[in-house]
Amino acid sequence: MAEDNSIFIGNKPFMNYVTGVVMQFTTKGASNVIIKARGKFISRAVDVAEVARKRFLENTVEVRDIKIDSEEFESDAGRPVRVSNIEITLGKK
Amino acid sequence: MAEDNSIFIGNKPFMNYVTGVVMQFTTKGASNVIIKARGKFISRAVDVAEVARKRFLENTVEVRDIKIDSEEFESDAGRPVRVSNIEITLGKK
Repeated sequence: MAEDNSIFIGNKPFMNYVTGVVMQFTTKGASNVIIKARGKFISRAVDVAEVARKRFLENTVEVRDIKIDSEEFESDAGRPVRVSNIEITLGKK
Repeated sequence: MAEDNSIFIGNKPFMNYVTGVVMQFTTKGASNVIIKARGKFISRAVDVAEVARKRFLENTVEVRDIKIDSEEFESDAGRPVRVSNIEITLGKK
């Protein structure tokens, strides 16, 4: 199931996420890992993907796909609020 | 020149960037616009792309390509610092 390989980025320490991605590839033998984030965590998701790919999994993993999307919600004040999201798929070369 | 269609996201008011993207397509007749950002502005670049695409250019513009990359610099304290970047290409359908 693809969902097993998903890592959702929040405000835990940065290296927790990087280690999570790296371990999916190394310990769990995943061929793809999907890094997901919403709102302000999108920048962090890109950082996690870049550090995992360039520092820890150099020459073995590449960016396979990047999707962006957004959803509109109603805020507590009743106003529409749009929240963006990203899904970065890293795959074994 | 492709570079003419690039919009670099920083800390000006959010709608300045959305208007910039929309005008490239409408007033200037561009077929592609590239939204670029670094570091913490990456989340904002995704927001700009989503608002331009879904609110202002609905059904006429789509996400054509997304690239991420990063560069390593030396900080003032002499430590290596990695800064990520993103390039989101929107194109006329």
